[in-house]
Amino acid sequence: MGEREKGVTTITVENAKLFVFDSLKALGTSDEAATLCAEVLIEADRRGHFSHGMNILHKILIDMMHSLIDPRAQPEILLQSPSTAWVDGKNGLGPVVADFCMSLAIKKAKEVGFGVVSAKCSSNPSIMGYWSEYALKHECIGLAFTNAAAMMVPTRAKEGAVGPNPIAFAAPSHGNDSFSLDMATSTVSGGKIEICRRKREPLVKGWAFNEQGILETDSEIAVKKMLLVPLGGLENTAGYKGYGLSCMVEIFCGILSGSKYGAQLDVWSERRTETADVGHCFMAINIENFAPYFRDRLNDLLLSLRKCEPVDQAKPVLIPGDPARMHRKKVAKQQGIRYSQQQINTCQVFANMLRIKPLQCQTSN
Amino acid sequence: MGEREKGVTTITVENAKLFVFDSLKALGTSDEAATLCAEVLIEADRRGHFSHGMNILHKILIDMMHSLIDPRAQPEILLQSPSTAWVDGKNGLGPVVADFCMSLAIKKAKEVGFGVVSAKCSSNPSIMGYWSEYALKHECIGLAFTNAAAMMVPTRAKEGAVGPNPIAFAAPSHGNDSFSLDMATSTVSGGKIEICRRKREPLVKGWAFNEQGILETDSEIAVKKMLLVPLGGLENTAGYKGYGLSCMVEIFCGILSGSKYGAQLDVWSERRTETADVGHCFMAINIENFAPYFRDRLNDLLLSLRKCEPVDQAKPVLIPGDPARMHRKKVAKQQGIRYSQQQINTCQVFANMLRIKPLQCQTSN
Repeated sequence: MGEREKGVTTITVENAKLFVFDSLKALGTSDEAATLCAEVLIEADRRGHFSHGMNILHKILIDMMHSLIDPRAQPEILLQSPSTAWVDGKNGLGPVVADFCMSLAIKKAKEVGFGVVSAKCSSNPSIMGYWSEYALKHECIGLAFTNAAAMMVPTRAKEGAVGPNPIAFAAPSHGNDSFSLDMATSTVSGGKIEICRRKREPLVKGWAFNEQGILETDSEIAVKKMLLVPLGGLENTAGYKGYGLSCMVEIFCGILSGSKYGAQLDVWSERRTETADVGHCFMAINIENFAPYFRDRLNDLLLSLRKCEPVDQAKPVLIPGDPARMHRKKVAKQQGIRYSQQQINTCQVFANMLRIKPLQCQTSN
Repeated sequence: MGEREKGVTTITVENAKLFVFDSLKALGTSDEAATLCAEVLIEADRRGHFSHGMNILHKILIDMMHSLIDPRAQPEILLQSPSTAWVDGKNGLGPVVADFCMSLAIKKAKEVGFGVVSAKCSSNPSIMGYWSEYALKHECIGLAFTNAAAMMVPTRAKEGAVGPNPIAFAAPSHGNDSFSLDMATSTVSGGKIEICRRKREPLVKGWAFNEQGILETDSEIAVKKMLLVPLGGLENTAGYKGYGLSCMVEIFCGILSGSKYGAQLDVWSERRTETADVGHCFMAINIENFAPYFRDRLNDLLLSLRKCEPVDQAKPVLIPGDPARMHRKKVAKQQGIRYSQQQINTCQVFANMLRIKPLQCQTSN
């Protein structure tokens, strides 16, 4: 029973998934692939990562309409060894490529202890944490990386040259508990800057640069060029580490796989004329190949972190994965995901265009 | 011909290595192990990472005198699969354990594409970048991680609970060029705060906390508790990412290997009564198992980054590894490494105690 917010509509998880499924099906995607894409996009929204959920659906659909994403593509292994694989995503849907590669990495980890798979010719796979977490039910640690449009400004530079390339890492603890880090290597993602602009709020100093290479707090100015600050900020607070981590991810993704890399990767817009050719990398490590009682030790570490004395009693210490879990609970309590009117309108435009059932806006009660 | 600085003595690389070698030999280390330790410690100083070079020698020697480090220990494989190994460092010298594990990871990568080795019961291995770079001459990407004393304050917390656990990543480009990231996951290492205190300089805001959980700029206060800020700073500039990365490294090192982890790891002091039981993790990926022309693509990426338009023409854009290369050149030009009088005095004390040839202070010209 959600409270009403002005200009916000609550959509049940099932209805949100159904809309993604129907729209992808309308453009020729198989049932299996459409289900998978609906699952990951709406999971992003359930976790509060709105920039990677329903918000990217229209861009995927436009790319499919322009034959830049092939809805029927099946990823292909180009080269493999017992613990590695090089994959061609065949310009398929990002989630289809990611599902194929992460499953393969886990299979290899179960066989020889470790699996690493690098893929070229893919497209946006939504949240990387969804893929690293595949490993959790297989007694594995999972890692997932992707390269992204070159919006991050290297330390000392004046221009974007590498992406805010994310790192996702998941490890199993007791029961359903886990450690799940899913982070851009920039201080914040472009999505967070977009949100500030929409709300007409200033940015925190340290999120974005302007064209002069100076930190910019005006969200209206920052959003135009989207020059992201590396994790760590300026040079005197070690921003070169965030820049270095972004390059590390680029080496795992673009350089290992032979996809586009660095400044070759454009910002994803409706005007794109070339395939995205994004690169990813996925890894799985079988924890059974190391010291016994891994889950006990991780559980103990996580407990000790959550029990740390906080500066402010109202803000307890969290572990990576907790904020997403909290947002998921909020969605359950609200009986749905809250989308902006702008998002609802975009879905309506595509429902008409594709002649599918519109997004069902009634909440379940 | 180095300029003279007050209270600073230039020592040739050979003489510095010889002193480390002799002092370790005096306490029963084999020729091979003493050579290895001398090589990595003095390489740290050549790169300008003084907190990991000659500066840690006396602590190693004291631990050996107290039987907390076994100078003759040989690491042992406890469990292995084609791509993984779990190793017991047997409380040996950190560099001996690191050399054993990284060599094993590379061997596995050459056999099955990927190798990962996690070790317990080790001690300080000096700079992790030295070990990740082992991979470069074997057509491999190398990664090296270690856990460390719990001096990093988790986001929202008031106390240290995880280490500034470093990430080292190296990848081969053309010729001798490479990408080599070697970074603590805190904004700065404790060593940088020590240096400011010694010079009576304030800290940059964002390097350390005080006991109230507030950013501290007085180096005299900060050095007492050594509460390091995670990479990213406070919560609104994504310090939880640096904290998350530190935990990731802890999972690779302490949780996988069964060594000490988190707050179990004490600050390394002369008063230590237990073995360090530090955990490490090493990985190697054979680049020949992925898209051909890896080195060409990496060279192209590195060139494009170094050619970025800088904000300040006097400060060109660098890639990870460049500052260490520049410091190495400086040492070559100075014909030696410049040590503080305090460092020279410490060496003299240990030379007397161990009855070895003192550190030779004459430069070669």
